[in-house]
Amino acid sequence: MSDPLPELDLTADVLTLTRQLVDAPSVSGSEEPLADAVEAALRGLGGLEVERVGNAVLARTDLDRDTRIVLAGHLDTVPIADNLPSRIEDVDGEERLYGCGTSDMKSGDAVMLRLAARFGVPGAQPARDVTFVFYDNEEVEAVRNGLGRVARERRGWLYGDLAILMEPTDGVVEGGCQGTLRVVLTVPGKRAHSARSWLGVNAVHGAAGILGTLAGYRAREVEIDGLTYREGLNAVRIEGGVAGNVLPDVCQVTVNFRFAPDRDEDQALDHVREVFADALAAGVTLEVTDSSAGALPGLAEPAAAAFVAAVGRPARAKLGWTDVARFAAFGIPALNYGPGDPNLAHQVGEYTRIDRLQPAEDALIAYVSGSDA
Amino acid sequence: MSDPLPELDLTADVLTLTRQLVDAPSVSGSEEPLADAVEAALRGLGGLEVERVGNAVLARTDLDRDTRIVLAGHLDTVPIADNLPSRIEDVDGEERLYGCGTSDMKSGDAVMLRLAARFGVPGAQPARDVTFVFYDNEEVEAVRNGLGRVARERRGWLYGDLAILMEPTDGVVEGGCQGTLRVVLTVPGKRAHSARSWLGVNAVHGAAGILGTLAGYRAREVEIDGLTYREGLNAVRIEGGVAGNVLPDVCQVTVNFRFAPDRDEDQALDHVREVFADALAAGVTLEVTDSSAGALPGLAEPAAAAFVAAVGRPARAKLGWTDVARFAAFGIPALNYGPGDPNLAHQVGEYTRIDRLQPAEDALIAYVSGSDA
Repeated sequence: MSDPLPELDLTADVLTLTRQLVDAPSVSGSEEPLADAVEAALRGLGGLEVERVGNAVLARTDLDRDTRIVLAGHLDTVPIADNLPSRIEDVDGEERLYGCGTSDMKSGDAVMLRLAARFGVPGAQPARDVTFVFYDNEEVEAVRNGLGRVARERRGWLYGDLAILMEPTDGVVEGGCQGTLRVVLTVPGKRAHSARSWLGVNAVHGAAGILGTLAGYRAREVEIDGLTYREGLNAVRIEGGVAGNVLPDVCQVTVNFRFAPDRDEDQALDHVREVFADALAAGVTLEVTDSSAGALPGLAEPAAAAFVAAVGRPARAKLGWTDVARFAAFGIPALNYGPGDPNLAHQVGEYTRIDRLQPAEDALIAYVSGSDA
Repeated sequence: MSDPLPELDLTADVLTLTRQLVDAPSVSGSEEPLADAVEAALRGLGGLEVERVGNAVLARTDLDRDTRIVLAGHLDTVPIADNLPSRIEDVDGEERLYGCGTSDMKSGDAVMLRLAARFGVPGAQPARDVTFVFYDNEEVEAVRNGLGRVARERRGWLYGDLAILMEPTDGVVEGGCQGTLRVVLTVPGKRAHSARSWLGVNAVHGAAGILGTLAGYRAREVEIDGLTYREGLNAVRIEGGVAGNVLPDVCQVTVNFRFAPDRDEDQALDHVREVFADALAAGVTLEVTDSSAGALPGLAEPAAAAFVAAVGRPARAKLGWTDVARFAAFGIPALNYGPGDPNLAHQVGEYTRIDRLQPAEDALIAYVSGSDA
């Protein structure tokens, strides 16, 4: 049993609420007290259907609106690095809230809770129905991911006309996400003493063509819904070697392909096979070690376009892979949007700009209240 | 204190003597009992000046002959792999003596002891003076090598007109040895998330040129004193990689250059720098981690030519590096010649062909007795 946290005050302003969340440590795997507090606060509002799934907390309005928006945020953080409790500092006139999880992504969770406090009470009249998904274990291996668990066990909870993942984006809408494919290329050789190298086949030399292909690769830029996705094909690891006087009989190159969401996983793999066709024909083998589909931004969908308009800043493409892909897999337009700064995530000096918090809350309120719905 | 071994019987035939040596375990670092036995046997002959230097035993005739031959053999073996005591087996009509050290190189030591027994007694009349060097710790790191210690502390003992290292050569004279140079090429890069690869510089891709150079390298063949040395330039290790989603900021390629003895160490390094000139100009750095000079065969020297004639089989070049280089450093022609089979050294199934033993003894006796001296 974990000690209960103090009650969350959802009527407090978004900065105060962010600090409450940040000062409630919830490193991946230890989210229970915070999930309990979130669940209690949401149930206390009186206008939401609430369900608990492990340490994920699901809540939604049920007002039979024409459109439904799903807001998702993870409750966990990376390990605390002597950067709690939170503190406010003024740096060159910029007010910052420092602490583990400020940026990634308890400021986003706080915005969600503020929305819940406004639209999840009896008598509230949002223009759109809203679903809230607070989940656990985002910062660890995918198999433990709470949103994945919800997708498997409570799939219906994730349906909507638009999903917004409150990951840090510096207050800009980042549409969809790119996919990622990891393959290991294995170059075979034959050992021999390096003093009699003609008796062997040097596998490291055999990787010359692969590295040449990678060095010369021209990555594609693709425009989808007005956003530019920029692909990349990179060796992320190479290894080979037996001893200082032996020709290596194996050289392995791990290649990571980040692909735009107009390719699916199969097409991405086909492309990689085509790029390395010469090597594969020469006896190199390819093994897929990791593959995750990207997510189309769906910005042409009215619900998504309206949200971009509410934010009032140009959207851009999300290049890294995020949990939005779990929504995209159900055909739901999926965006990343949060007040945190993505460059500060997982840093000891993590902070969020305080002047980013209220605009995020305001944009979402405008959107959920909006007459276009 | 180690238990003393039974006395060595230098009057026994070379096979019996080989078995006596093989059945006296002497893994590197534990040569003392065997060195004691060798020293006692040599002192007992009565016609040799004998000196002990650690676990190396030095002995020589002093008959004021015009030429002096130095015979050198190490007493140590690689670790025993359940392959002692020795045993004789007949395989398809070929008689073999199996056991740790049979090939590398106690059969060679036995030949040396037989020579000592013949020429190291009062009244013997060899045509050449003979020096015997039995030494320790050849199978381990160079800094412990007993021959190196003798070269530093008793340099005068190594001088002669010809040095013969009794390493396994299958009864063929192998002249000199090639040098070996090991360098680490470090390719710099800049880390970046693989989803935003244009923000970084991929060090593994930067190694493409190095591997291309290696793959396309045409190794030189050089004839020296009628022997053909075949060089080789090989990557023996490559490594780079930070994480599955990060562009590597460093890639290191370890390259081993085996060079013919017409190049010295400086020239070998100059050549390697020239081969990788483009990479070095582009910011790759080169660090020498290991360098050992080769040894010229000196077969044009009369003392060496006479020995090749006594063996009666064509000589060939020694391609691996051996301790003959320690003699060559003093300008002494240096050959490898031993009854063992180099391909069986360090194998669990190590053996020596019994029919190789007596011819080796006979060739050396003919040479040392010879009228050409």
